[in-house]
Amino acid sequence: MTEPALADWLSQTNDVTQVFLAAGQIPDLINMAGGLPEPALWPVGDIADLAASAVRDHPAQALGYSPIEGLPALRDAIAARFSRPGLGLGRDNVLVTTGGMQALDLIGKVLLDRGGVIAAQSPAYLGALDAWRPRGPAYRPMQPGSNGFDPLATMQGAQFAYVVPNFSNPTGRLVPLAERAALLAAAQATGTWLVEDDPYGTLYYDGAPLPRILELAGTGGTYDGPVIYLGTLSKELAPGLRIGWVIAAPRMIAALTTAKQGSDMCTSGLCQLMALGAFENGLTDRILPQVLDTYRTRRDALAAAMATHLSDLLDWQLPQGGMFIWATARDPRLNTDALLRKALDHGVCITPGSVFDPLGQDRRSIRINFTLNPPARLAEGARRLAAAIRATLEAG
Amino acid sequence: MTEPALADWLSQTNDVTQVFLAAGQIPDLINMAGGLPEPALWPVGDIADLAASAVRDHPAQALGYSPIEGLPALRDAIAARFSRPGLGLGRDNVLVTTGGMQALDLIGKVLLDRGGVIAAQSPAYLGALDAWRPRGPAYRPMQPGSNGFDPLATMQGAQFAYVVPNFSNPTGRLVPLAERAALLAAAQATGTWLVEDDPYGTLYYDGAPLPRILELAGTGGTYDGPVIYLGTLSKELAPGLRIGWVIAAPRMIAALTTAKQGSDMCTSGLCQLMALGAFENGLTDRILPQVLDTYRTRRDALAAAMATHLSDLLDWQLPQGGMFIWATARDPRLNTDALLRKALDHGVCITPGSVFDPLGQDRRSIRINFTLNPPARLAEGARRLAAAIRATLEAG
Repeated sequence: MTEPALADWLSQTNDVTQVFLAAGQIPDLINMAGGLPEPALWPVGDIADLAASAVRDHPAQALGYSPIEGLPALRDAIAARFSRPGLGLGRDNVLVTTGGMQALDLIGKVLLDRGGVIAAQSPAYLGALDAWRPRGPAYRPMQPGSNGFDPLATMQGAQFAYVVPNFSNPTGRLVPLAERAALLAAAQATGTWLVEDDPYGTLYYDGAPLPRILELAGTGGTYDGPVIYLGTLSKELAPGLRIGWVIAAPRMIAALTTAKQGSDMCTSGLCQLMALGAFENGLTDRILPQVLDTYRTRRDALAAAMATHLSDLLDWQLPQGGMFIWATARDPRLNTDALLRKALDHGVCITPGSVFDPLGQDRRSIRINFTLNPPARLAEGARRLAAAIRATLEAG
Repeated sequence: MTEPALADWLSQTNDVTQVFLAAGQIPDLINMAGGLPEPALWPVGDIADLAASAVRDHPAQALGYSPIEGLPALRDAIAARFSRPGLGLGRDNVLVTTGGMQALDLIGKVLLDRGGVIAAQSPAYLGALDAWRPRGPAYRPMQPGSNGFDPLATMQGAQFAYVVPNFSNPTGRLVPLAERAALLAAAQATGTWLVEDDPYGTLYYDGAPLPRILELAGTGGTYDGPVIYLGTLSKELAPGLRIGWVIAAPRMIAALTTAKQGSDMCTSGLCQLMALGAFENGLTDRILPQVLDTYRTRRDALAAAMATHLSDLLDWQLPQGGMFIWATARDPRLNTDALLRKALDHGVCITPGSVFDPLGQDRRSIRINFTLNPPARLAEGARRLAAAIRATLEAG
């Protein structure tokens, strides 16, 4: 017997995830790798009440199959939440997804045949690259804000463009208003869909939120523009509910719905009702100030510790929001894939830049999370990281 | 501007789903189309308690990201539940999925490149065809039990074979033990993976359950055979939790895990804890007798009504379990796609056979569900269906 070969794309994954999994076994490890929230911020009692009352008060919706697109009341609530003067959203503009990740998978299914081109903000979210790998796309790196970046030329002929304008994962960069407008204009001129992935849109620690690209794209009447907006409850309430949403033109929602039907049929009715309850009773708004205070303090603590321990080794910019500091080695000999392994020996875990590079080539950068650990642990993590970088350079 | 084309596969879907959706607006419609359970059988109070205590007692697991493969305790519980003498299952044999549907999607991602061949029991579950369409497979129809069926020749060179041995959707057929053994032997001889999809494995109304093909495939030590077994909580407890599972060789679980990472990252921790709680406190076992009594009564009621109203129009066999009666028109002029539209005019909804045919050609069969409606409604549904068939033939 000869076992059939696995699909081609499986040979293109890296082993960083396995390294992370093994890291879970290391005692006293300071995990600054993932994009994990602080569990102490979850309003456990409120969420337990939401869960029980969803089942008791709406058993047919909580326990039965939902419509593929999501519960009508939740779709309406999301449409209302994101509508603005000039941006009219209705139920047909909204698809509920099983976490934000599923939206990325569905977009790949709907827009990519083999060889399809994605214009992606680079470096890009690892999960997006994971989601699209089975469709075998080609990448055209896109660096808004860099010299000579031409959105029109970059987006022309691409199936879609992918950006995280609010505190991009991994770089933490905030795309300024003029660049948002230029991206939208290029999408409108080329016909290329523009995916605005916005998991961190509520996590502004300094200054007022910028308008979403979706808001700039209002078309008068029911929204029918080229922006495909992705949101998630994972950062606003809790990731374990796996609730995300897509806001897009009705014909795109219809195509994504066909793809969702064959992906998981529908999202848990129970979890959808809990999301709806959290929106309706104001829970997500109520907990936000404490979330922002906690994460702002942690960001500042990490930045202070990095200034103390890492300023001769790394360059970085303070992000105004989100969950990460992106840092680049000053010494070009540092290989950050090698650093990951050495960092684990030193009891700290960060994410190497290679996994965020659509072309897999970056070996000089790392992503450091500041939301999961309290200030003292972040400081100790920065100290360990400095030792690991020195050890890597010495070994190298 | 020219909008990019959607992926090829989206042009290959049929419009039956749209017809069903429109059907939701028809007053007094008797829905015998879907595979829906009877909501009155859900133990609402017990499930509400499971939900609240999952959040209160295990907030980190309920509300945080789960491991991609699922919570270790749930994987262990599933492994224990399906282990048998001669079939040793451990945690590494189990992947938790977001409903049974997701398992089908992941199998397609892992095993299908464009042009890959699936040997599929035909007619086949609509959802499986939906799940694999984005991967562009070729189908080799497989009819266990038909004259001249050669499992070895059919499975040779296929990426995987797909069967629903217990009360196949749509036909309701129970694959006998000897055929199960022959399918397994062919999988072992050819190296082709054998997907055993088993949503109805607990729904035996007559006689004792046959051994799963998975059980026949025990390899001594930790399971490492060619059977990929799919289960779901949707029929045992409630579909709204979206909990399914795959049991397979560890290397297949590892590949499916990579695919799940890019599909939805992980399944809801809350829903996983509720499934674990229902297994541990015996809830699923406790409610099964009443489920079986209710569905057996309804099956018999539908069969009696069909004997009264439809015996001159349709041929069918009484299924020993599951959720459906599969019926074929006696008059070859009946087009069951046309019948669907006429049936809606008569206030009854069934599923036409075309959607279950991998080649899309069947126009003579229909699938009739008996689990959702009480006996009197089933009888009225059969009466309306007979009128609709006559009207379709007259309109001819």
